[in-house]
Amino acid sequence: MLKIYKSLFILSVFFNFLFVDAQPKLANKYNLMPWPKEIKENSGKFLIKENFTVSISNNHSKKLQRYATKFIRRLTNTTGVFIDEGFPIKNQNSSLLIQYDKSVDVVLGIDESYELLILKEQIKINAKTDVGAMRALETLLQLITYDTNDFYFPAVTIKDAPRFIWRGLMIDAARHFQPINVIKRNLDAMASVKMNVFHWHLTDDQGFRVESKVYPKLQELASDGLYYTHNQIKEIVEYATDLGIRVIPEFDIPGHATAILTAYPELGSKDDYEYKIERFAGIFNPTLNPIKDETYVFLENLFTEIAPLFPDEYFHIGGDENSGKHWDENKKIQQFKEAHGFKTNHDLQTYFNIKLEKILKKLNKKLMGWDEIMTDGIPTTAVIHSWRGTNEGLEQSTLIEAAKRGYQTVLSNGYYIDQMFSVASHYTVDPIGNAILTKEARKNILGAETTMWSELVTPLTIDSRIWPRTAAIAERFWSQKEVVNVENMYKRLTVISRNLEGLGIEHIKNKKVILRNLTKDENITSIEVLSNICEPLKLYYRNKGGTEYKTFSPFTLFADACTVDAIDAWKFNEIVNQYIEKPSDLNKGELMYFFDQWMVNYTDFKALKSNPNLVKLNKSYASLSELAHIYKDILSNKKNSNQCKSIEQHLAIIQKPFEDVEFAIYDDLEKLYTYFKKVKK
Amino acid sequence: MLKIYKSLFILSVFFNFLFVDAQPKLANKYNLMPWPKEIKENSGKFLIKENFTVSISNNHSKKLQRYATKFIRRLTNTTGVFIDEGFPIKNQNSSLLIQYDKSVDVVLGIDESYELLILKEQIKINAKTDVGAMRALETLLQLITYDTNDFYFPAVTIKDAPRFIWRGLMIDAARHFQPINVIKRNLDAMASVKMNVFHWHLTDDQGFRVESKVYPKLQELASDGLYYTHNQIKEIVEYATDLGIRVIPEFDIPGHATAILTAYPELGSKDDYEYKIERFAGIFNPTLNPIKDETYVFLENLFTEIAPLFPDEYFHIGGDENSGKHWDENKKIQQFKEAHGFKTNHDLQTYFNIKLEKILKKLNKKLMGWDEIMTDGIPTTAVIHSWRGTNEGLEQSTLIEAAKRGYQTVLSNGYYIDQMFSVASHYTVDPIGNAILTKEARKNILGAETTMWSELVTPLTIDSRIWPRTAAIAERFWSQKEVVNVENMYKRLTVISRNLEGLGIEHIKNKKVILRNLTKDENITSIEVLSNICEPLKLYYRNKGGTEYKTFSPFTLFADACTVDAIDAWKFNEIVNQYIEKPSDLNKGELMYFFDQWMVNYTDFKALKSNPNLVKLNKSYASLSELAHIYKDILSNKKNSNQCKSIEQHLAIIQKPFEDVEFAIYDDLEKLYTYFKKVKK
Repeated sequence: MLKIYKSLFILSVFFNFLFVDAQPKLANKYNLMPWPKEIKENSGKFLIKENFTVSISNNHSKKLQRYATKFIRRLTNTTGVFIDEGFPIKNQNSSLLIQYDKSVDVVLGIDESYELLILKEQIKINAKTDVGAMRALETLLQLITYDTNDFYFPAVTIKDAPRFIWRGLMIDAARHFQPINVIKRNLDAMASVKMNVFHWHLTDDQGFRVESKVYPKLQELASDGLYYTHNQIKEIVEYATDLGIRVIPEFDIPGHATAILTAYPELGSKDDYEYKIERFAGIFNPTLNPIKDETYVFLENLFTEIAPLFPDEYFHIGGDENSGKHWDENKKIQQFKEAHGFKTNHDLQTYFNIKLEKILKKLNKKLMGWDEIMTDGIPTTAVIHSWRGTNEGLEQSTLIEAAKRGYQTVLSNGYYIDQMFSVASHYTVDPIGNAILTKEARKNILGAETTMWSELVTPLTIDSRIWPRTAAIAERFWSQKEVVNVENMYKRLTVISRNLEGLGIEHIKNKKVILRNLTKDENITSIEVLSNICEPLKLYYRNKGGTEYKTFSPFTLFADACTVDAIDAWKFNEIVNQYIEKPSDLNKGELMYFFDQWMVNYTDFKALKSNPNLVKLNKSYASLSELAHIYKDILSNKKNSNQCKSIEQHLAIIQKPFEDVEFAIYDDLEKLYTYFKKVKK
Repeated sequence: MLKIYKSLFILSVFFNFLFVDAQPKLANKYNLMPWPKEIKENSGKFLIKENFTVSISNNHSKKLQRYATKFIRRLTNTTGVFIDEGFPIKNQNSSLLIQYDKSVDVVLGIDESYELLILKEQIKINAKTDVGAMRALETLLQLITYDTNDFYFPAVTIKDAPRFIWRGLMIDAARHFQPINVIKRNLDAMASVKMNVFHWHLTDDQGFRVESKVYPKLQELASDGLYYTHNQIKEIVEYATDLGIRVIPEFDIPGHATAILTAYPELGSKDDYEYKIERFAGIFNPTLNPIKDETYVFLENLFTEIAPLFPDEYFHIGGDENSGKHWDENKKIQQFKEAHGFKTNHDLQTYFNIKLEKILKKLNKKLMGWDEIMTDGIPTTAVIHSWRGTNEGLEQSTLIEAAKRGYQTVLSNGYYIDQMFSVASHYTVDPIGNAILTKEARKNILGAETTMWSELVTPLTIDSRIWPRTAAIAERFWSQKEVVNVENMYKRLTVISRNLEGLGIEHIKNKKVILRNLTKDENITSIEVLSNICEPLKLYYRNKGGTEYKTFSPFTLFADACTVDAIDAWKFNEIVNQYIEKPSDLNKGELMYFFDQWMVNYTDFKALKSNPNLVKLNKSYASLSELAHIYKDILSNKKNSNQCKSIEQHLAIIQKPFEDVEFAIYDDLEKLYTYFKKVKK
């Protein structure tokens, strides 16, 4: 899944302004995400006190019982209130009364709707299913607020249901292995924003991450010891199910198969080829041999062993980015193509996929694959996972095409969070957009998934790459199409981001861990100030050609401490825009504050005991400091000879990427320069 | 294990000064912990570059192979150097050459000695065992240093071996369950300071934390769903073994048995008693019935099932704090005692222990228990875990007594880190002290264990309660008796503490997580400043009578963000002492800095959007700010009427505990007042 597209940004800016008025006004008051379908205010508030109790209408649902217990823990931990009853009780007069019709298996299309009624005296949740009740509990937790005296729930009535029934997060555990505690905390976070599909990318060129008892060489030779045991998989599936989340495993074949072929080279398309676990990133040639019976015997045995670990009906076989090179180089494969009248490698892969589809059918699984599998011969029982095409929501995308051709389909194009684009750029992608669809075709669009490819992320950094952006994307998948105000989304996301930390997500705290490791000193302020205006390189510029980083290279660098949507850059941008539109003492003072901060902190940075990693940051930081100095002089009306030349020199330095990051404030600094030239002439 | 003692402090201050000169001078230069037996400097340094390679003399030891791979990862992540060879290679000319004689099972008494030779051209490790080589790798990692251009290892020669063969950390996973990722990261940290025993307290009144297939009600009814599966236990044992750490399980009986009896009340000493998982802390009455055959059948079946999960020969059965109340109240038990001529409940417990010892013997296990088990009848095959007695190192302690009476013995008295005393207070407890022992008796003293009882800790806070103090205690267990300089220990510990964070320990980063949750705002500086001079209440004052907190009460409070050895208090103390000894502009300025900081931050604190948790801190913080104001005036020679009365009023407030913490700077503020009164009169 390596791909470059750029059109989103232009679109995103455009969309912003269209729907501002459609955004419900209460979204300025309540920090709910995803925003619910209907909300209205009642009078008063429900105080959270020690005597808070929870009861559930019936105890058929063990998972809801557990969820409600966790709810009480979270309520306690967030507020510090010593809640006396630590578990749900039997009492119609309990503070929170949860009613639901039936306990359901966690499968595609279950009813997740709910009603939440908060009055001064009691809170009621009504849902058709236990999973719907869970979604309501998350809404309730997001409503916790406080004054000086009390924590409380504001009295509101909410009616809610999702727009799409498939709302997923894909985590690539192959490029960089992600231990089960990483998966668990991300599942908790997913549930907190009402996502319901965890897509687990388990195999790739860089590793096969599942224990096989039938083919043990897979974990012995192709995992570096980093794989999930059957028991761990069961543990995760159970954990996810308890949260109302389905688990879709992905075994990527016939390409992306270097790891498999490292263990079983006899299944490869190239004879006498030395397959070795891939350490770089990119698209590679090792490919399963589609004309050997052994390949299908292997896959059938493997899937027969592994498929039962995953109770969900859907089973993802990847199918993407088969380079075809090794097929082209294999004479027998060429002959086979000819004999079968296959003109292209696509035809051959369709042959492969159809055989696979039959194997999976025997195991009661539906085949799902990336959109390359959508060839003419593939039956409509297959599910198309759309990741290509720059024009989602318009006629040309593979999603819309698949839906029209009768395939169930899920969209990931537009939600590639590994590409390090702003949350706004993803938030403004609507899965369907303006496409005009028949009722049948619309029904084929199950939903969407955001994808966390892990070439450049480790357990230390993965949370800050997934969150908080994914919370806003989850809103896109759940909420009504009209909920699109970016500014309001940012405001709510700030609060949600902190809530995510309460759930165990490490996106905030690990930033400083990396900075402390870089400075080898507790005093990280000066480098933190720098990191707050820098963002990791976007698209795949960080790891050009996939060969700068190996899988075991350090991801404890300055770039790993930086995040998309750099927090100070966002603020600086606002102030620069205000200043240019209408200078005032206030916004001038705010600009000065930033310039001072950069100058002072650069001085502090220079005073740190330096090391090779800090040295590398010096040049860019020095230019920023110099530039801040000059800009400050300009704002203070101090003359400075040769100003323009200096500014241009420093801007040229600041424009350049350094240490795999770029200044997110560059455009604003340039804008200011243009403004100064115009005004101060 | 609830106990109050106070004598350590007086002792600790006293010991400090005795051995200062014996401390090796190089300890000011190298931040090694535990300090090695012998170290000498060579000339030059070994540069850490991309071509760094590791080779191992033979590949018999899979665990060393894995350890060396982790070593490369840690070297990469700490330095940011892109090391090209991610795994050990075969090459006599590799950068680091590891040689060892044999791969050993991880059991008591294996040879952990090593030699480490760093020259400009190559680094060599020589050890008798693979585990010794692991200990050397940790020393090597602690030696990483840098200048502006390079990361490097200084050229030194180290010869090292431990003083005690049992160097343990006990984690109580019963009072608050600790998931396996918590255990794993603590095992990593233990290995980094050369500890070799993980004592896993698995059952108590508050929960039974192990899956049993024979007695499934244990996890079903007595764990709240929080327990380790057999597979998870195997995973932990394997993980620990890979680090050269033994795992000793503890099943606490016959007291501390409320959880067991919640599942199987028929084994209790009191008929018709409603046993319920205990939610409070303390010593409780539910006790196994020692006169029923069923009790022994149960224990034999249970241990037969569970003991094989733990390959170590030692098996801890607790045996402490049996209140005896339920035995006294049971007529049949009274009759049984009479019939057997047992005068006390101790005699009866000895009867119980002897039967237990036989069960364990059949399973090839050595019985270990807290020192209550050391009664007259107990065979010397039992291992005594000493936790009582205030005079370790003197004649009266249970450790010395046990050793003299021929029992193998391990000390925990003096190392109760849950009591929240300073690292110095534990560091200065020598396990043997001045006791005069025969060679035989000395040999019986296996070593010591620090104990992390978890009444008041959760996965969020446990790391900050264990670390960094345990690193210094680990030095006490490993290093020579003469290594006792407290100031030097503090200096090294600051660096080790940051290294621990690199390993995944969350003691630093989770502090801010708690503070962010408290303020509900990213700006936590003002509350952080307060937390840096406050410490959690010591001994068991935080949870008086064990009934203030239930197991599910919030541990996300201000007290949970505070730690022992409050960092600013330590600095403030130094300056106050300097000032009182000899006032100067410098130390006066430093005092002013603190006073300013407290005043300014109190103002910021007041400006936060308040909530009930912040309101509770206000009174004490306000007094601190007022006091800082007055002290500043005094230092600036400003007159202030009614000064003394104000100071005394505010000191009285500051002296009082608030929100389960106390000001660690109180004594110094009082000392300053006394000084002011004397000088400014």
